[in-house]
Amino acid sequence: MQLGLIGLGKMGGNMRERIRRAGHTVIGYDRNPDVSDVKSLEELVEKLDAPRVVWVMVPAGHATQSVVDELKDLLSEGDTVVDGGNSRWTDDEKHAAELAIKGIGFVDAGVSGGVWGLQNGYALMVGGDKQHVERLHPIFEALKPEGPYGYVHAGKVGAGHFSKMVHNGIEYAMMQAYAEGWELLEKVKSVDNVREVYRSWQEGTVIRSWLLDLAVNALDDDEHLDKLKGFAQDSGEGRWTVEAAIDNAVPLPAITASLFARFASRQDDSPQMKMIAALRNQFGGHAVESKE
Amino acid sequence: MQLGLIGLGKMGGNMRERIRRAGHTVIGYDRNPDVSDVKSLEELVEKLDAPRVVWVMVPAGHATQSVVDELKDLLSEGDTVVDGGNSRWTDDEKHAAELAIKGIGFVDAGVSGGVWGLQNGYALMVGGDKQHVERLHPIFEALKPEGPYGYVHAGKVGAGHFSKMVHNGIEYAMMQAYAEGWELLEKVKSVDNVREVYRSWQEGTVIRSWLLDLAVNALDDDEHLDKLKGFAQDSGEGRWTVEAAIDNAVPLPAITASLFARFASRQDDSPQMKMIAALRNQFGGHAVESKE
Amino acid sequence: MQLGLIGLGKMGGNMRERIRRAGHTVIGYDRNPDVSDVKSLEELVEKLDAPRVVWVMVPAGHATQSVVDELKDLLSEGDTVVDGGNSRWTDDEKHAAELAIKGIGFVDAGVSGGVWGLQNGYALMVGGDKQHVERLHPIFEALKPEGPYGYVHAGKVGAGHFSKMVHNGIEYAMMQAYAEGWELLEKVKSVDNVREVYRSWQEGTVIRSWLLDLAVNALDDDEHLDKLKGFAQDSGEGRWTVEAAIDNAVPLPAITASLFARFASRQDDSPQMKMIAALRNQFGGHAVESKE
Amino acid sequence: MQLGLIGLGKMGGNMRERIRRAGHTVIGYDRNPDVSDVKSLEELVEKLDAPRVVWVMVPAGHATQSVVDELKDLLSEGDTVVDGGNSRWTDDEKHAAELAIKGIGFVDAGVSGGVWGLQNGYALMVGGDKQHVERLHPIFEALKPEGPYGYVHAGKVGAGHFSKMVHNGIEYAMMQAYAEGWELLEKVKSVDNVREVYRSWQEGTVIRSWLLDLAVNALDDDEHLDKLKGFAQDSGEGRWTVEAAIDNAVPLPAITASLFARFASRQDDSPQMKMIAALRNQFGGHAVESKE
Repeated sequence: MQLGLIGLGKMGGNMRERIRRAGHTVIGYDRNPDVSDVKSLEELVEKLDAPRVVWVMVPAGHATQSVVDELKDLLSEGDTVVDGGNSRWTDDEKHAAELAIKGIGFVDAGVSGGVWGLQNGYALMVGGDKQHVERLHPIFEALKPEGPYGYVHAGKVGAGHFSKMVHNGIEYAMMQAYAEGWELLEKVKSVDNVREVYRSWQEGTVIRSWLLDLAVNALDDDEHLDKLKGFAQDSGEGRWTVEAAIDNAVPLPAITASLFARFASRQDDSPQMKMIAALRNQFGGHAVESKE
Repeated sequence: MQLGLIGLGKMGGNMRERIRRAGHTVIGYDRNPDVSDVKSLEELVEKLDAPRVVWVMVPAGHATQSVVDELKDLLSEGDTVVDGGNSRWTDDEKHAAELAIKGIGFVDAGVSGGVWGLQNGYALMVGGDKQHVERLHPIFEALKPEGPYGYVHAGKVGAGHFSKMVHNGIEYAMMQAYAEGWELLEKVKSVDNVREVYRSWQEGTVIRSWLLDLAVNALDDDEHLDKLKGFAQDSGEGRWTVEAAIDNAVPLPAITASLFARFASRQDDSPQMKMIAALRNQFGGHAVESKE
Repeated sequence: MQLGLIGLGKMGGNMRERIRRAGHTVIGYDRNPDVSDVKSLEELVEKLDAPRVVWVMVPAGHATQSVVDELKDLLSEGDTVVDGGNSRWTDDEKHAAELAIKGIGFVDAGVSGGVWGLQNGYALMVGGDKQHVERLHPIFEALKPEGPYGYVHAGKVGAGHFSKMVHNGIEYAMMQAYAEGWELLEKVKSVDNVREVYRSWQEGTVIRSWLLDLAVNALDDDEHLDKLKGFAQDSGEGRWTVEAAIDNAVPLPAITASLFARFASRQDDSPQMKMIAALRNQFGGHAVESKE
Repeated sequence: MQLGLIGLGKMGGNMRERIRRAGHTVIGYDRNPDVSDVKSLEELVEKLDAPRVVWVMVPAGHATQSVVDELKDLLSEGDTVVDGGNSRWTDDEKHAAELAIKGIGFVDAGVSGGVWGLQNGYALMVGGDKQHVERLHPIFEALKPEGPYGYVHAGKVGAGHFSKMVHNGIEYAMMQAYAEGWELLEKVKSVDNVREVYRSWQEGTVIRSWLLDLAVNALDDDEHLDKLKGFAQDSGEGRWTVEAAIDNAVPLPAITASLFARFASRQDDSPQMKMIAALRNQFGGHAVESKE
């Protein structure tokens, strides 16, 4: 089938390639003319036969909103827009309602796969009305990994991004789990070779996983991670997971601890620990470490 | 080779079977005569040719200490004892020193595999002197999973149990991660079928793992886990991991949160939350829920 | 001076009384005619001489928004509205902008004091432009406790509610601190009389505080809090504090732990711990507690 | 009455002074001859009339054990030893049993007061048999603050140090609460003057406390704590509190978070966050910050 694909960055570019390999026609648009198949959104829309399907793969927030606004003008009744970016689930309902005014369908798709997706396939979590989702099946089939898993129609509009967001929240805590264990093992004297301990865990243990395999890869590159700084960014999904938990009064202690550890990792000096130091000094005359 | 194996419970019994399938001779002893090959520890020791190797697979603490004490009397210079139970790493140094007085070697082995071990093999994390560990290689080969992983000589005496303990700490936080995500997904209206979301994650995602596979198995048995109570025991390893972290001044927020969640799950009513309710009532006149 | 006061509930009613005791004229309006001084907002506005000052003391969210909407129509250029409720700081900028269109000033005031405020005074944290805040000084003086503290002009519009929100976040963690300590002391055998330990802490310790005094009051009423359930509500401020922290990438582990403990306290059974139980059963054959 | 006092450091020296001001006789011993009243423990014991009372005020652990060992030899049946240091409660039972062999009584006393104790008095939490505790009453009266509070006989041997330990655990979380709130307020733009917000809280709020007063003192010295590093030591009591919680299966999320925040504050770079950075790089191609 035919697909319009907007956004040909690290993710979008590889997805175009994987869909084409499956025998579909992809017309890609990107602001960067070096990678774009067409010169404008207008041209992209003209080249597609109605009813059109346009997949948006641009950064969440303003960029996605702006593309949705343009598509609302360019597309027609019966067309379908898919947001495959990392949008917040609350944006999905808004986009679906805006497009529905003109009879344009909307599907949200959470996409996991990172730099490994082209080769292994992309896991897809999809939200939207059945009629819109079904139109996309050939594309979803092309993108997803081989085998029985890697694709789910999770529910109504927003359910795809919500599921992907929770996936990322779980990922935060799993990464934190391996990271905490690694620090503790590296600290004790009796364990000689933490890297080999991690490697051995890849079979027969309760904690074997793809993330563990990646940890072993990383330790093979740099056994004690000496080349790295303990500095970790966070993307929106971790924050939104905690916010969704608060909205729903669900306690998420491990996921939240993982998010906060990242926040702390980015501070050169911790303001709150200055206050702790100041208080200890006030009541106990405890020495403080001063700057200079 | 020949092995004496003490403790033929859920783990030990299956390990005897797996070692025998690999062509070794196992003489097993258990207090339960229905499963025991010999009538006493004395008989077990007599039946083994020197230098003997005796694997202890009994509950950590008093039971293990008591078997080590008996073996110290029954065994001779050049023999080797393996503690494959869930002993605390601090016990290992003590046991090694006690046995060394008579020239008996000591190896500690953390064993992972649960009810799946007989079929898939047991992951082994081993601590001890090279000379003692090497004697055990044929047994370790028999027990471990096929393939290149699943066995590590982690370091000095205690390193095996320490590594296994950290493995379990990581496991606590991974389980907590999947559990937190599941509760949040079950709570929101837009996601129709959480079980299918979990199933889909088994390929192509960052969070695919054996524990995820087990989660899907569990949801296939009981989609909303309605038959279960939210009640989770903890074994010693989770507690010891946090204690080791405290000893080493390593922050373990996610693992500790997971341990505390289990503690809380076993309380019918939370004393600390009674105090919160009492304080809110004192300053704000907030209503409290009384026991009728 | 003259003040219009909208909302005469537990807080508003006592505040009217305290302001009147200080010699000011308060015209109060409440939907409940038994406590209201006037029959309608229109009548309240008519009875005040321009430039008017109207203090809104109704629940945050829809109720406050609705009163602000009505006041925007009823009031005139030069009048001032104070929101003394528990509004989210993000609402303040919105309200200020809406009222500014007609030249009406806006001040936000976080008010602490609970049921003790009438007698001891209310702590006030205020945000807004200096010119608007200064008009209110006689009322702030009447409401605040005697002595040098208990009032601050914290900053721009929103700063009052933001400061009050953080106050409540801190309160959550302080309450949690006393609650955790109490549970631990009640659990150990060697300590005979936890209530007397808490009472003794009221002098000479690092942790003496008004909340500690309240804890002792509560224990004097019910030594082991046997009459209460471990069930604690949370108001918006705790949640907003964590959300503000996420917006600002500030780690708040203790405050967030306190919020999550309240969430958990309200669950009859913990869904996430069902998943933990299910996973333990899957890999280890661990017994689960079933609902009979 | 007469008291032997061993250890005349920051705490012990001031305690000697406060007891003397109350009219008692204190014979102090310290390894530092400049502050010691006698040349040796032997001389101290000789100068006291039987039945003697000797108060030990030296660092917990080896130093305290060593003094207890010496006193066991020097003292006689009917004498009483008080351990007023920060010993772990588990040491108390051991010391009591060792001294009981010779008929020497033992009392453990948790002492709070820091540098303010000489002036304001020391809060005392005491454990031991009633007969031994009663002998000390005149000394406890001299040390404690004026007023009805500040002293408790908490229970059996160990209960004094246990109560003091929990006091310190609560203190950790209270300090963390004020510190977290301060960092958040300092981060937001709308709040102009965080120091004045903290000052205002000293009256009329739910969170007024002595620690809050100290925070205001600290901010008066250095408004944004620019002179300090965010680096906080921890003493044994915080760690022991968490260990005691683990022993008793009591969840202490806020206190433990406070302890871990201190651990993290002392790390130049976080090993666990290196692992997070490495994993993000592995699966997502996310940029890492390298040590150049």
